Amino acid sequence: MAIAEQIKIVEVGPRDGLQNETAVSVDAKVALIEALAEAGVSYIESASFVSPKWVPQMADSTAVMEQIKRRPGVTYAGLTPNLKGFEAAVAANMDEVAVFGAASEAFAQKNINCSIDESLERFKPVIAAAKEKGIPVRGYVSCVLGCPYQGEVPVENVVKVAEALYQMGCYEISLGDTIGVGTPLKAQEMLAAVAEKVPMDKLALHFHNTYGQALANIIACLPLGVATIDSAVAGLGGCPYAKGASGNVATEDVVYMLNGMGIKTGIDLNKLIAAGADICQHLAHGPRSQVAIAELAKA
Amino acid sequence: MAIAEQIKIVEVGPRDGLQNETAVSVDAKVALIEALAEAGVSYIESASFVSPKWVPQMADSTAVMEQIKRRPGVTYAGLTPNLKGFEAAVAANMDEVAVFGAASEAFAQKNINCSIDESLERFKPVIAAAKEKGIPVRGYVSCVLGCPYQGEVPVENVVKVAEALYQMGCYEISLGDTIGVGTPLKAQEMLAAVAEKVPMDKLALHFHNTYGQALANIIACLPLGVATIDSAVAGLGGCPYAKGASGNVATEDVVYMLNGMGIKTGIDLNKLIAAGADICQHLAHGPRSQVAIAELAKA
Repeated sequence: MAIAEQIKIVEVGPRDGLQNETAVSVDAKVALIEALAEAGVSYIESASFVSPKWVPQMADSTAVMEQIKRRPGVTYAGLTPNLKGFEAAVAANMDEVAVFGAASEAFAQKNINCSIDESLERFKPVIAAAKEKGIPVRGYVSCVLGCPYQGEVPVENVVKVAEALYQMGCYEISLGDTIGVGTPLKAQEMLAAVAEKVPMDKLALHFHNTYGQALANIIACLPLGVATIDSAVAGLGGCPYAKGASGNVATEDVVYMLNGMGIKTGIDLNKLIAAGADICQHLAHGPRSQVAIAELAKA
Repeated sequence: MAIAEQIKIVEVGPRDGLQNETAVSVDAKVALIEALAEAGVSYIESASFVSPKWVPQMADSTAVMEQIKRRPGVTYAGLTPNLKGFEAAVAANMDEVAVFGAASEAFAQKNINCSIDESLERFKPVIAAAKEKGIPVRGYVSCVLGCPYQGEVPVENVVKVAEALYQMGCYEISLGDTIGVGTPLKAQEMLAAVAEKVPMDKLALHFHNTYGQALANIIACLPLGVATIDSAVAGLGGCPYAKGASGNVATEDVVYMLNGMGIKTGIDLNKLIAAGADICQHLAHGPRSQVAIAELAKA
């Protein structure tokens, strides 16, 4: 057991979360991002510079970033699928950017109309431009434990894409169980396999809770030494492949678990719960965090 | 890692679950219990012989047991807090009975108006009578990871009560995180401490999901060798101490996790999901199982 004493939480609620919710106002997004920073979250994926044709919920990312009062020590990141998006991210003064690959051939074809290899080619100019400007690039690999279109995803494919993104210059690779179908042993085996090619301290877990397994999968992976976890406050996002199901693991539930294990995150749980409850005022549902539901019921 | 290749699921939905829901009809209970047996559940806590003054939802236990078509190989168990309850259980031809203790002094006082030691005294005649009739007695210990009244519960108290119940003749001790506040490391430490006094193969985990931690706590405990898990189909029950919050960990979510790890339970997941969806037709809410929600959304 070599569990990290400190875990970095990468908060993806304002991007991966809200892009799968009904659109909320710029003001609501700004309030959310500021409340997260105030709660002690040090890394917030805040924006996505994608075509508004594909993701209308993120069309106001530039406006959001203009309004935010930035807090020193907090990293504000944005998703940049291509050079055009990257330029918008630079104009918005993002601290970091991210590219989004898939370990599933079927998912790549359906989502971005190209093969995995072609998608990796498309990232090269983005990563090169970011390098030139000294902006760190984070790489996502989706479908690492299953795909909504092809079902099983071979671990070799996950390793291949993760290694390629790392070799291309991504400083960190986030391993995404996009549809939340993974179970603990498979999560552990997948992480171990990737860690043979990419150093463990360059890897992050990005698990969805669609099948209720996210925390169990995280706890199964922690002894391997992984120290970065992606999560979304209030479990924002849901699952586009199963309406009504859960999406990203809730940050509150992750922080509660880590607190109980004496692992530091730097996050104030009560402020985090309040931030999640506030953004849900703008949505048709309450927080999808068991910790938030239980604590708010007691209040 | 000495994870069991086979896990016994103790289904507590019809008792621990339904006693915390609005009352449902005898027919609905009978249909649920029969559907669970049909799904391959081999142990079903089906009844509670307590005063209808305290638990009106369970007042029809005798009628339920009369109507059920019993399936060979399935154990039908009932809760028996005292001799009167035990006699009713015998009359209902229960295969096993259970007594319910607490590791928290405050919980014992509030729930049964006596001290822990006094509650243990009360079980003696029940256990003696059961022994005489050759009926196995299961022992519950509640509040093993926290108490709604006193907060922290010292591990020594859990060990003391578990050992006492075992010495008194309970063949298995079920360790209950009644309010679902536990986290993985604490769950692991608690189980390890109890296992110093009671053999691991006589212990069961009974974790609630109020704070979303149940599966993570189970996965943290499995390497210690525990091989019996209590759960409730559809996460029936909720939490009486936090309205709207989750209760028992959902059997569907446990079985899905174990399936993914290649651990046998003998349960057909699809039939289990259907059984949970059916009983929820009689309740004001849908299944509180992420697996059920995701699978039903796909259907």
